[in-house]
Amino acid sequence: MAGNTLGTLFTVTTAGESHGPALVAIVDGCPPGLELSAADLQVDLDRRKPGTSRHTTQRREPDEVEILSGVFEGRTTGCPIGLLIRNTDQKSKDYSAIKDLFRPAHADYSYHHKYGLRDYRGGGRSSARETAMRVAAGAIARKYLASQGITVRGYMSQLGPIDIPFRSWDAVSENAFFSPDPDKVPELEAYMDQLRRDQDSVGAKITVIAEGVPPGLGEPVFDRLDAELAYALMSINAVKGVEIGAGFASVAQRGTEHRDELTPEGFLSNNAGGVLGGISSGQPIVAHLALKPTSSITTPGRSIDVDGKPVEVVTKGRHDPCVGIRATPIAEAMMALVLMDHLLRHRAQNAGVEVQTPVLGQL
Amino acid sequence: MAGNTLGTLFTVTTAGESHGPALVAIVDGCPPGLELSAADLQVDLDRRKPGTSRHTTQRREPDEVEILSGVFEGRTTGCPIGLLIRNTDQKSKDYSAIKDLFRPAHADYSYHHKYGLRDYRGGGRSSARETAMRVAAGAIARKYLASQGITVRGYMSQLGPIDIPFRSWDAVSENAFFSPDPDKVPELEAYMDQLRRDQDSVGAKITVIAEGVPPGLGEPVFDRLDAELAYALMSINAVKGVEIGAGFASVAQRGTEHRDELTPEGFLSNNAGGVLGGISSGQPIVAHLALKPTSSITTPGRSIDVDGKPVEVVTKGRHDPCVGIRATPIAEAMMALVLMDHLLRHRAQNAGVEVQTPVLGQL
Amino acid sequence: MAGNTLGTLFTVTTAGESHGPALVAIVDGCPPGLELSAADLQVDLDRRKPGTSRHTTQRREPDEVEILSGVFEGRTTGCPIGLLIRNTDQKSKDYSAIKDLFRPAHADYSYHHKYGLRDYRGGGRSSARETAMRVAAGAIARKYLASQGITVRGYMSQLGPIDIPFRSWDAVSENAFFSPDPDKVPELEAYMDQLRRDQDSVGAKITVIAEGVPPGLGEPVFDRLDAELAYALMSINAVKGVEIGAGFASVAQRGTEHRDELTPEGFLSNNAGGVLGGISSGQPIVAHLALKPTSSITTPGRSIDVDGKPVEVVTKGRHDPCVGIRATPIAEAMMALVLMDHLLRHRAQNAGVEVQTPVLGQL
Amino acid sequence: MAGNTLGTLFTVTTAGESHGPALVAIVDGCPPGLELSAADLQVDLDRRKPGTSRHTTQRREPDEVEILSGVFEGRTTGCPIGLLIRNTDQKSKDYSAIKDLFRPAHADYSYHHKYGLRDYRGGGRSSARETAMRVAAGAIARKYLASQGITVRGYMSQLGPIDIPFRSWDAVSENAFFSPDPDKVPELEAYMDQLRRDQDSVGAKITVIAEGVPPGLGEPVFDRLDAELAYALMSINAVKGVEIGAGFASVAQRGTEHRDELTPEGFLSNNAGGVLGGISSGQPIVAHLALKPTSSITTPGRSIDVDGKPVEVVTKGRHDPCVGIRATPIAEAMMALVLMDHLLRHRAQNAGVEVQTPVLGQL
Repeated sequence: MAGNTLGTLFTVTTAGESHGPALVAIVDGCPPGLELSAADLQVDLDRRKPGTSRHTTQRREPDEVEILSGVFEGRTTGCPIGLLIRNTDQKSKDYSAIKDLFRPAHADYSYHHKYGLRDYRGGGRSSARETAMRVAAGAIARKYLASQGITVRGYMSQLGPIDIPFRSWDAVSENAFFSPDPDKVPELEAYMDQLRRDQDSVGAKITVIAEGVPPGLGEPVFDRLDAELAYALMSINAVKGVEIGAGFASVAQRGTEHRDELTPEGFLSNNAGGVLGGISSGQPIVAHLALKPTSSITTPGRSIDVDGKPVEVVTKGRHDPCVGIRATPIAEAMMALVLMDHLLRHRAQNAGVEVQTPVLGQL
Repeated sequence: MAGNTLGTLFTVTTAGESHGPALVAIVDGCPPGLELSAADLQVDLDRRKPGTSRHTTQRREPDEVEILSGVFEGRTTGCPIGLLIRNTDQKSKDYSAIKDLFRPAHADYSYHHKYGLRDYRGGGRSSARETAMRVAAGAIARKYLASQGITVRGYMSQLGPIDIPFRSWDAVSENAFFSPDPDKVPELEAYMDQLRRDQDSVGAKITVIAEGVPPGLGEPVFDRLDAELAYALMSINAVKGVEIGAGFASVAQRGTEHRDELTPEGFLSNNAGGVLGGISSGQPIVAHLALKPTSSITTPGRSIDVDGKPVEVVTKGRHDPCVGIRATPIAEAMMALVLMDHLLRHRAQNAGVEVQTPVLGQL
Repeated sequence: MAGNTLGTLFTVTTAGESHGPALVAIVDGCPPGLELSAADLQVDLDRRKPGTSRHTTQRREPDEVEILSGVFEGRTTGCPIGLLIRNTDQKSKDYSAIKDLFRPAHADYSYHHKYGLRDYRGGGRSSARETAMRVAAGAIARKYLASQGITVRGYMSQLGPIDIPFRSWDAVSENAFFSPDPDKVPELEAYMDQLRRDQDSVGAKITVIAEGVPPGLGEPVFDRLDAELAYALMSINAVKGVEIGAGFASVAQRGTEHRDELTPEGFLSNNAGGVLGGISSGQPIVAHLALKPTSSITTPGRSIDVDGKPVEVVTKGRHDPCVGIRATPIAEAMMALVLMDHLLRHRAQNAGVEVQTPVLGQL
Repeated sequence: MAGNTLGTLFTVTTAGESHGPALVAIVDGCPPGLELSAADLQVDLDRRKPGTSRHTTQRREPDEVEILSGVFEGRTTGCPIGLLIRNTDQKSKDYSAIKDLFRPAHADYSYHHKYGLRDYRGGGRSSARETAMRVAAGAIARKYLASQGITVRGYMSQLGPIDIPFRSWDAVSENAFFSPDPDKVPELEAYMDQLRRDQDSVGAKITVIAEGVPPGLGEPVFDRLDAELAYALMSINAVKGVEIGAGFASVAQRGTEHRDELTPEGFLSNNAGGVLGGISSGQPIVAHLALKPTSSITTPGRSIDVDGKPVEVVTKGRHDPCVGIRATPIAEAMMALVLMDHLLRHRAQNAGVEVQTPVLGQL
């Protein structure tokens, strides 16, 4: 496949460019009988939407989603769910300036070599605008997972050099940064304001956690739950690293320290991040992802044009100075989609499995 | 699928448990006409083989691979290649001690909840023994890639707390640690000796690099080259984190620093790790992976049995005190398999694409 | 997957119900650079369109397709092509009469047991209206195949008891039946007129032929070209049988009669229907498909309701008395989609294969 | 994929050539806890085995299967099941006579053009020997299906010009032809004896029936149960046609005749062959398949060599004069594999669906 489909049983196929007529998605494999309306998807779309604070792009799109199929009388039918978001804010600006050159750290050069031609308007298919459909599809998964007692939530854990310790979930929705620590917000705002003055951008780290996941999800060997999470999270624009649980800190850990001991009352720690041997353990699933700084900045940079000649590039337009700020809902969506797929896969093969061993919680 | 198949066009399907009769794999989609013999696979199998130094498990298996099909008169036919490795060193030891309890940080507990029953002998399917077949399959991919000018090589870049800077590829094959710095070897040996005395284990970081990869491999959106690498590398036993290029260091980088500028003479840096917008840029593909410390250690740990009662666990047997030491050939194999798959996928869709823009090297 | 995606490399994913807001499709894997506009798809959509003669349903929909993505400045970009057809003629009629009962030979009963609920308006997802998107997607494949010298054409070879011998391709487009024999048309019209008076329906046989297919397409063992054609053609609503080449006549043939001998001037016959060992031989690919009579007829029939009580069913509405009449463009589309997929698959694995043996034509 | 994997959730991947070292298969996705031993597979392998009567090839292979993995203490573990059959009767005969020419109606010519080279010994991968692994894998599916009350059985319904009406299942296992009518056996034997004297071969028709299949299996649109059956059955060597239920007879049927009416006591007929809208109805699943006459006959035929020069071909060796005679167990296996896959797929999406409408039997 040409890579625009995610999942095995609960699949999401997307299409659409940044400045084309519309984004479209088909979500296949949703169980029948789930109450669903466009409003359910809109909640998450609005959390990802640009233009909600001065720290994100000023492109303003309503990102209004329409459900085209698969829902009847307010419930899913089990048939594929078609989703449509019209692009309304396609500024008919002049793209001739970037048409024949490659912006550094963008997909221009690699797309050009892959396809020989490309839709250069606003990045075309490589634009993060595509992630709107991930969020819409993810909202369906999140709603179903919630009906099974599974929640997926994320927050920003680092902005550039600033670490953001976890304080509370409540705080996350109350600021533009998805910061779990409300006291950190002024520092984050000051940092962003200086960044804009510097005409520069910066990276961010996002943490996503799923709670209520039953043990047994994931497959051994290749399609491990952590492997599929790594795939799904790394597929988000600008992501350069993924960790599960202790992640890279595991390298310097000793076995006596890393291993999460079990007691009748629960696991004593969660270095595993909720995955043992590729399969969920019942502990919270914990993933961290690193997003690189936005590539579109107004500080000039060196590059070449399609003929290989040197050029100077300045990326104008309305861009997020930190793409990580709006990445939390996208990361939540991707984790939800992976869990949804593996929930169905688990049912397929292990429907009748009964186990007497108690399911442990996390202490 | 139940997750034992990797790839879309160049696929590897594996089966086999640690202490079952044999490991088996079917490699499908190999182009016809490639010269291939079991000896080609044996080279890499021997690099992964246990028991080659005092720092790895003393389980000694010849790991001799037999090609069952798909090769005729010394060349691949395009039909699926069947591979077989008999398990010869299945110690018929008594497993009753671990049969009914869950070793911390192992897959025992999660497998038990997934399947209701499990082959507990030596970890069964969750044992890293399964990776022998990844290496064998990867050797086929590496041989084909080499015929296209693509090389995949790896080394250990960190052992526990010890950073190992890159010095030279030649050094890597000359020590048991895959250390690219020969001067670090005595320090690594001393560290490992102390670790054994402590009855403990430790993690490691591996770096894998592909050179000669043409621009254009990978798909936009979901099946990005970096996403598929993250999936493939995270699927290796004990891996807890994957980075592409600058990885988590990107978080604190600024856009002016991170972006790899282009000049007619080549890219000026490689923070991208060779992937832009999910598609190879022609720069070297660089990935880092974090491996957790070995879970099987003789220092007692707390756990529960299948009835939920508390127990103390001691994992005896012949185990690597650092699973990362033998992980380099496995990581190379996984990167090679992903590149091979995407090379074929690229040909399928873009066979006729011609581009006049020069392919840039890395400065 | 939940079965709404066709293909491996050139994939078509569809969604949409008969009386929902719209039909939608995503076509992934199209090579870049193909000239394409909505008008290219409209030609085939119009050939399938209802209401063009008195022998088909009087439902009149413009079936106007919009391309949402994947095409830039008149050429495909290699990114997924989103397609949208709004349903405009959704009669807001009262469906309460069929809501709680199962029409014989319809999917009502099986959908009800599968999903527990269903969109009963006009058959919902089980309606043949869904095939509009197959035709639209097939038109993309047909255009690309044509650029490679491959044509796919079909005709009606039997209507109820009336055999229709092949006379000429030109005739096919000149009558409402896709009859290759213009002299048969009056007989077909008389038969259909009588059928309507009888308030009954009838089956049909369609023949589809691909010419210009190079030898080598298809895979051994499972994904044979003929197996994938059988799958694709059998997936069309109402199809109950598929033959390749001599088909069921092969049963009574002797080996000396069936085998297609080869001479330097070409194959001497085509009982194989262009496929040997699952792989195209260079001869024309020939398939026949049997369509059952329309299930929606006004002659009352026995059935049960959702409580298992006996009921009498009369299917009112605007229905084709012979669904086979409009099936030719659908069958062409399905054959084209399979060939397109296998053309790409062949390129992936066998890009560099060179053969000196001449390609034989059909004598 | 290169087409050597069947199924979505319950997958079978095979490898192996007629005269290579071995056949190998990996069956993935089997539910855990199923009692299974090699003896379970051997029963069906022996039914397919050559050399059991004078009417089949005299090649004698024990076809002894070894289970390499996925079974522990007599039960499936849920991990992939590796299967191995060594080729023991590889006559080291001289193949130079057919090495450079193309036997009519064989895969020689199409493989040659696909791959550029081929394993010509006994047909290599295109040999029906490969179907041994289908039968072995199918036996696993059949055993699981039986535990769910589903049986799959087949018989020969036509041999060359001789129709064989169904009389009883008991008769099928009591003769070499899988004839359900014991009284027909002498006629079949006489026909086959004459055929051998004529140095010719003939086709056959096989009927396969699944009983006890619950309503709801199969997916709408592409992955319909009948479409997947058509794919699976058409993928068997020599099959040229597949029918579901009334099949090609539907063409001449009227709607009033074809539609299977429902009463509280059951369906009144089964023209549908147990599939409505692509989804099982609870009626028996009925499929017919047409097999062409064996291509390997000793009567000389015209062909060309690899240089395009005319040659005369005589296929010596030990061949079945009617490949259909041994096809019944293969067809059963393929139907079982498709049903098994769809049973798991159904569970995945529709695990919680509850329906009050009674399941109808077949009157």
